[in-house]
Amino acid sequence: MVAMLEVTDVSAAACCAPLVREPLGAVDAERLARTIKALADPTRLRLLSIVAASEGQEACVCDLIEPVGLSQPTVSHHLKVLTESGFLTRSKRGTWAYYKLAPASLDEIARTLLAG
Amino acid sequence: MVAMLEVTDVSAAACCAPLVREPLGAVDAERLARTIKALADPTRLRLLSIVAASEGQEACVCDLIEPVGLSQPTVSHHLKVLTESGFLTRSKRGTWAYYKLAPASLDEIARTLLAG
Repeated sequence: MVAMLEVTDVSAAACCAPLVREPLGAVDAERLARTIKALADPTRLRLLSIVAASEGQEACVCDLIEPVGLSQPTVSHHLKVLTESGFLTRSKRGTWAYYKLAPASLDEIARTLLAG
Repeated sequence: MVAMLEVTDVSAAACCAPLVREPLGAVDAERLARTIKALADPTRLRLLSIVAASEGQEACVCDLIEPVGLSQPTVSHHLKVLTESGFLTRSKRGTWAYYKLAPASLDEIARTLLAG
């Protein structure tokens, strides 16, 4: 008989009890609100969607400035917020920084909010 | 032969192209950010989850004040934001206002963010 191991992602389980299943405690609510706040900005949503639609879900910061029509420091600030919140990962290659979508972070939020 | 009608929710289709499928336009990004912002607050997340965990996913405002430990006007303000954003519906019965979860609104946001 083969023992079956169920792999449980404890961190995901702790953070991702759906919002509608049980009352959220104060600490969990603070953490979730902070993460959601990183998405609650039109420029950050556009940057995320441009990166996500790029080849390999990765884009150079140099290709993100023109589409959103903002200054490079402003775009870099928004990319920093998205990276610190776990929605993007950043890597430097040569002169430029490249940002890659971390789809698991979006999925985690989506699963948390799913009510149906 | 029976004609089959496929019911399509055009408004949902317009607002809910997943974030990661194609670059988000400025207008869609503004609207989505505004809706997400309503969720980006710990008290509002707690209120939503308390309502959602209540019988019939409905709760009297009188039962929502104590659990979050804030004044009645503050709680009412947060409930108003959630109602105006479509996450709750409000009905008055006798002296009290009752708030009911509108799960479709949460699901819509969740589907929009789903990346996987």
